[in-house]
Amino acid sequence: MAVVRRPQRIVALAGGVGGAKLAHGLAQHIDPGHLTVVINTGDDFEHLGLLICPDIDTVLYNLAEVNHPVQGWGREGESFQVLAEVQRLGHEAWFRLGDRDIALHLLRRQGLDTGMTLTAITADLATRLGVQHPVLPMSDEPVRTIIHTPEGYLAFQEYFVHRRCEPRMLGMTLSGLERAQPTPQVMAALATADAIIFCPSNPYVSIEPILSLPGVRAAVAAKPAVAVSPIVGGQALKGPAAKMMAELGAEVTALGVARHYGSLLAGFVLDRTDAPLAPAIAALGPRVVVTDTVMNDKAGRARLAAEVLDMVEKELL
Amino acid sequence: MAVVRRPQRIVALAGGVGGAKLAHGLAQHIDPGHLTVVINTGDDFEHLGLLICPDIDTVLYNLAEVNHPVQGWGREGESFQVLAEVQRLGHEAWFRLGDRDIALHLLRRQGLDTGMTLTAITADLATRLGVQHPVLPMSDEPVRTIIHTPEGYLAFQEYFVHRRCEPRMLGMTLSGLERAQPTPQVMAALATADAIIFCPSNPYVSIEPILSLPGVRAAVAAKPAVAVSPIVGGQALKGPAAKMMAELGAEVTALGVARHYGSLLAGFVLDRTDAPLAPAIAALGPRVVVTDTVMNDKAGRARLAAEVLDMVEKELL
Repeated sequence: MAVVRRPQRIVALAGGVGGAKLAHGLAQHIDPGHLTVVINTGDDFEHLGLLICPDIDTVLYNLAEVNHPVQGWGREGESFQVLAEVQRLGHEAWFRLGDRDIALHLLRRQGLDTGMTLTAITADLATRLGVQHPVLPMSDEPVRTIIHTPEGYLAFQEYFVHRRCEPRMLGMTLSGLERAQPTPQVMAALATADAIIFCPSNPYVSIEPILSLPGVRAAVAAKPAVAVSPIVGGQALKGPAAKMMAELGAEVTALGVARHYGSLLAGFVLDRTDAPLAPAIAALGPRVVVTDTVMNDKAGRARLAAEVLDMVEKELL
Repeated sequence: MAVVRRPQRIVALAGGVGGAKLAHGLAQHIDPGHLTVVINTGDDFEHLGLLICPDIDTVLYNLAEVNHPVQGWGREGESFQVLAEVQRLGHEAWFRLGDRDIALHLLRRQGLDTGMTLTAITADLATRLGVQHPVLPMSDEPVRTIIHTPEGYLAFQEYFVHRRCEPRMLGMTLSGLERAQPTPQVMAALATADAIIFCPSNPYVSIEPILSLPGVRAAVAAKPAVAVSPIVGGQALKGPAAKMMAELGAEVTALGVARHYGSLLAGFVLDRTDAPLAPAIAALGPRVVVTDTVMNDKAGRARLAAEVLDMVEKELL
């Protein structure tokens, strides 16, 4: 597949794995000056004295092509010497931080200790990893996604990793949102964007926190936005999106995703599996592209990204 | 060698390797209720977002018998996966933090983040490592040893590890001393001690910071104190004590050490190599024991500790 560099300025909103894959695909087509990836930080948490930013790191590792090839987190060629000792010392170790991962976290911790913003630290880590495209945390202030369950409120990673998303989701709160602002860098990227892409990330816990920051939803609404459905054949490819949609009473289909984003969308990309839903989605307003949305390898990421960018160019600009 | 449990209450003042070895010897003879080890924290520093406490950790690792058997720091069976990645990420890695060591430092960092004192954290880490004797940082407030050199002021680990003690020492400052207090636990241990032992640690950068805290010198002076010479045959067994003494104009012998501590000492233990110095040291006031002070193994540590305790029992109480 010939890579054609694109002239549009694109902002991709991303959470974890699905977002990281499409961001990596987009980065294969768009110069660093024309693609900015804005990342959810609602999944972040403090653990073992470190600030863990799962979505930032998943995107960085994917853009740097040092991500684990199978699991949806962490590094390839990873070892777990530190965690083994943490366990020997009698501490819980349900969050699987590998040694290479910890190295990056120590540099982040050191940056925070010296007063650097998360944005500046992320830019520094990106440079160290050889990532050229701007990767922006949505905010420099902490926002923490809290999942409401019958057992009470659970911090996101407690729900997601420790409890493996087993408790039923009744709702969610974005703790800290009232004191958080999107960064100036995020707002500048949105203001100068030709189009916004909602990566195939969890609409609730990945994309919603970004959109909930003051001014972001309006900034996004002012631009053509395309969403790639994270739901394929009634399932999430990764993570709890389908389970959450069902528990929150949404239709667990690409149509349900399109309804969730509603009038924000100028375009929608769904999988061939879900082609029968295309007319109903189009009836909601957005242009619709039906294609293979499952990104199995680097070329698959680039191919899907190209199709999304083609739609933006040909139908939305 | 039969181990005879001793009834005295002993406080050992310790820095790094030499102090850790004698503390380990003492712990083989004295119940946890009767031996407290008070540790210098002037060597502590912030590095990679972690609070590194070299002397505390060397003592903990030695008491837990998980110390590296040859080098004067770190763990046995250590790996360096994290540090290798820190270097790949373009960060300096002159301070050799191993993976097991980092595990302990993450727990310390987490404790500090939750507001625990260094004393409480150290007690927790000691428990996790199976160490039963109280190990007390001299202070919960930061005191940082600064070495004056012709090149300017160097933070201790910068001087000690990064520059391998090469710059000439002109003097030292204990930064933060004006705001630091010994902990209540340290003062209580000193107040109830039957005797104090100055481990064979560096008199300037290991023992002096402890004695410099408000009230400590007077509390020590009120008890019989015994020093074990860290200088044997004009050399320090480990570390820069001999070089420092020479640069500061002191006589680089056990006699120079005895003069340094002066009237604080009721007893002094020196190596057979230095036996000819015994009369001159005795003339300064303290009782003198000449023995083999080099601790080559666990039994050697216990033997020297027994001789020091014998002297305390028979000659000082």
